[in-house]
Amino acid sequence: MYKLLDSIYSKIAKNMRRSEIRELLKLTSKPGIISFAGGLPASDTFPVKKIAEITNLVMEREGEKALQYGPTEGSPVLRETLSKLMTKKEGYEIPPENIIVVTASQQALEIISKVYLDFDADILVGRPTYVGAISAFRAYGANMIGVTLDNEGMRMDKLERELKRLRKISNRKRPRFIYTIPDFQNPAGITMTQKRRQELLELAYEYETLVIEDSPYRELRYEGEAPDSLLKMDKDKGFVVSLHTFSKIFAPGMRIGWIVADKQVLDKFIIAKQSMDLCSNEFSQRIIAEYLNQDLLAPNIESTIGKYNKKREVMLKALDDHFSDIEGVSWTKPEGGLFLWLTLPESINDDAKEKALFNKAVENNVAYVIGSAFYGDQPKYNAMRINFSYPSEEQIQEGIEELSKVVKDFLAQDNNYVSVASP
Amino acid sequence: MYKLLDSIYSKIAKNMRRSEIRELLKLTSKPGIISFAGGLPASDTFPVKKIAEITNLVMEREGEKALQYGPTEGSPVLRETLSKLMTKKEGYEIPPENIIVVTASQQALEIISKVYLDFDADILVGRPTYVGAISAFRAYGANMIGVTLDNEGMRMDKLERELKRLRKISNRKRPRFIYTIPDFQNPAGITMTQKRRQELLELAYEYETLVIEDSPYRELRYEGEAPDSLLKMDKDKGFVVSLHTFSKIFAPGMRIGWIVADKQVLDKFIIAKQSMDLCSNEFSQRIIAEYLNQDLLAPNIESTIGKYNKKREVMLKALDDHFSDIEGVSWTKPEGGLFLWLTLPESINDDAKEKALFNKAVENNVAYVIGSAFYGDQPKYNAMRINFSYPSEEQIQEGIEELSKVVKDFLAQDNNYVSVASP
Repeated sequence: MYKLLDSIYSKIAKNMRRSEIRELLKLTSKPGIISFAGGLPASDTFPVKKIAEITNLVMEREGEKALQYGPTEGSPVLRETLSKLMTKKEGYEIPPENIIVVTASQQALEIISKVYLDFDADILVGRPTYVGAISAFRAYGANMIGVTLDNEGMRMDKLERELKRLRKISNRKRPRFIYTIPDFQNPAGITMTQKRRQELLELAYEYETLVIEDSPYRELRYEGEAPDSLLKMDKDKGFVVSLHTFSKIFAPGMRIGWIVADKQVLDKFIIAKQSMDLCSNEFSQRIIAEYLNQDLLAPNIESTIGKYNKKREVMLKALDDHFSDIEGVSWTKPEGGLFLWLTLPESINDDAKEKALFNKAVENNVAYVIGSAFYGDQPKYNAMRINFSYPSEEQIQEGIEELSKVVKDFLAQDNNYVSVASP
Repeated sequence: MYKLLDSIYSKIAKNMRRSEIRELLKLTSKPGIISFAGGLPASDTFPVKKIAEITNLVMEREGEKALQYGPTEGSPVLRETLSKLMTKKEGYEIPPENIIVVTASQQALEIISKVYLDFDADILVGRPTYVGAISAFRAYGANMIGVTLDNEGMRMDKLERELKRLRKISNRKRPRFIYTIPDFQNPAGITMTQKRRQELLELAYEYETLVIEDSPYRELRYEGEAPDSLLKMDKDKGFVVSLHTFSKIFAPGMRIGWIVADKQVLDKFIIAKQSMDLCSNEFSQRIIAEYLNQDLLAPNIESTIGKYNKKREVMLKALDDHFSDIEGVSWTKPEGGLFLWLTLPESINDDAKEKALFNKAVENNVAYVIGSAFYGDQPKYNAMRINFSYPSEEQIQEGIEELSKVVKDFLAQDNNYVSVASP
């Protein structure tokens, strides 16, 4: 069987990699472990009772419609509702025609990959960037060019240098797009400043490059003022494709997200989506539309923000308490979202060391995602993505303390090993 | 904007065609029209009240789990339940490891396309075959080789001839798979006989070719005995990949289906699915699992069969009444499923005539899907796919009578035109 299968795999299938994170995450499901690894929202933020109530209402009022096939571009009732939501949020008219519903953000990434990527096509991504995007882009063979982030987001001098370099290569198509998560970036937790956003768009216009704004966390801001979204700053120019999801602000089990973009962009997306799943779940779409129309989303987000902000503070305090005395370690202080990024000394500079540290942590019942998973090109090995939305406050305190011990032990051994090896 | 987009589209995107059916179906949504065009289940078969009840139960018992992310391969509770269902149905042990949950059958077709197809890769499909499969296969650039159907299903002499021909072409990979809908085929309504199934598998073994068994309608049998499924006949050999969905036996709005196959086949599918949507809707999966565990599916299918069988009989009688006097017209008599295939005289032999007839029908408030949509290679133009599950019995009677008038008028004019044109 294996021989047969091996002889018929597509070029794309051969390019797919079994997600290493997926394998590592399996280790983290052992009982008793404190996991900072997942990207899960806290289950106590889900409006369970309200959803039961609303399902009853939707079934009674429009059950037969909610259980039938719906249009590929989304249920009209949800698109209308999203139009109102986005218009209010962004402060300018975003009509339903500029919105399509998708089977959550991951499908949006798949659609974008299918529509714009070929083998060896250039795209520009954060360095680091979201692992789910990397795996979608990689399957289609994209050449991912990483653009370093600092505390203000993607570095525009680096981006410009890459765009300039690519333009000079003759016979090469322009880069297909720039992929960015401007708000509370996954994995780094960094927010792109207003100034950088402006510069990003100027570069996009100058080099005529589409910008994919992945925006799953924007509503989850715990402090500071939000810069404008790239969508709003671009407005009618049509260079920004903006991805949104209910996964982090309502319930990921519903698998519903949406894309806001130029109608011309969306036209192709609809065709692509049609052969992917015909339409998204109509049942979930109508429940969500009713939830939004009852004005329940904003208070739910507010209560979620309260919970996550407390967890973030507990996390930052625990890091201060247990990591600030470790030389060469630093971490980001996200103003929102689900993650922070903990950078270790540069001495952890290969796959073997990174894995050894990870395994040590799991042995000691604490888990995170290894930093190298978040690079579309040459990885770095000295970082951890730390999630603070899912674990409880107690788990955060306990887990971070434990993790600090693991790191200290590991670094001591590693330095020791180094000094032994180099007399 | 258009110029920019045009310069970054992938090869796949350029290969996607806006579904012509989709455009034609838009015409059929005008008020007052009787439509035999859709492939929709009748809305009165949806267990609306039960779903509300079960949702309440699921929310109360496991709400936080049902609203959270789930595993890519499907919710363990649903996979267990499907394992029991399939084991009972097929009469041999089908463990959960041989089953993955998908976002309905269309996603299964997309996964198969992504995993096995490249530009110009050969596959064998029915002639005619399901339009949603065609559009998924086409996007990935497959070379679809049509194998004619007769009343016993795909013709095995033709299939063998093609397999032999392909084997002779040197430097060409083996065909990636044979795609077939053995039960109540969409669009033709034909069921493959037991003998043909046996021959199909023998050819698959001889030529070492995977068989995709698309099985959305198998449970909807109104008369006669069911031949064995290809899955069962193949059993542990692992050559059959069997696709199933709740869309026609429960509710398409839930977007849940499943694939049964060799574990090795599924391993790759899981990786592909992961970057498509991470996981299917956990909320719907748990509702369906509970519905199955309460033994509600079988009685619902039974009641659906009762309804559809009556509609089928009304349809066949109406065709007898209104079409049997039109020379050169014939139609299939499906033993189950949702569709029949009406063949018109060979004189309707091009796109223009086919469209003209369709437009005439829509003008007269009756719609169907044009036959040419169902060909992966060179189309024929003299057929209609007629759905009988969605319209009411009254609509069927009225619509078929009207359609017969349209066809008679059209054929009379067409013959007239022909005789005028050729003196």
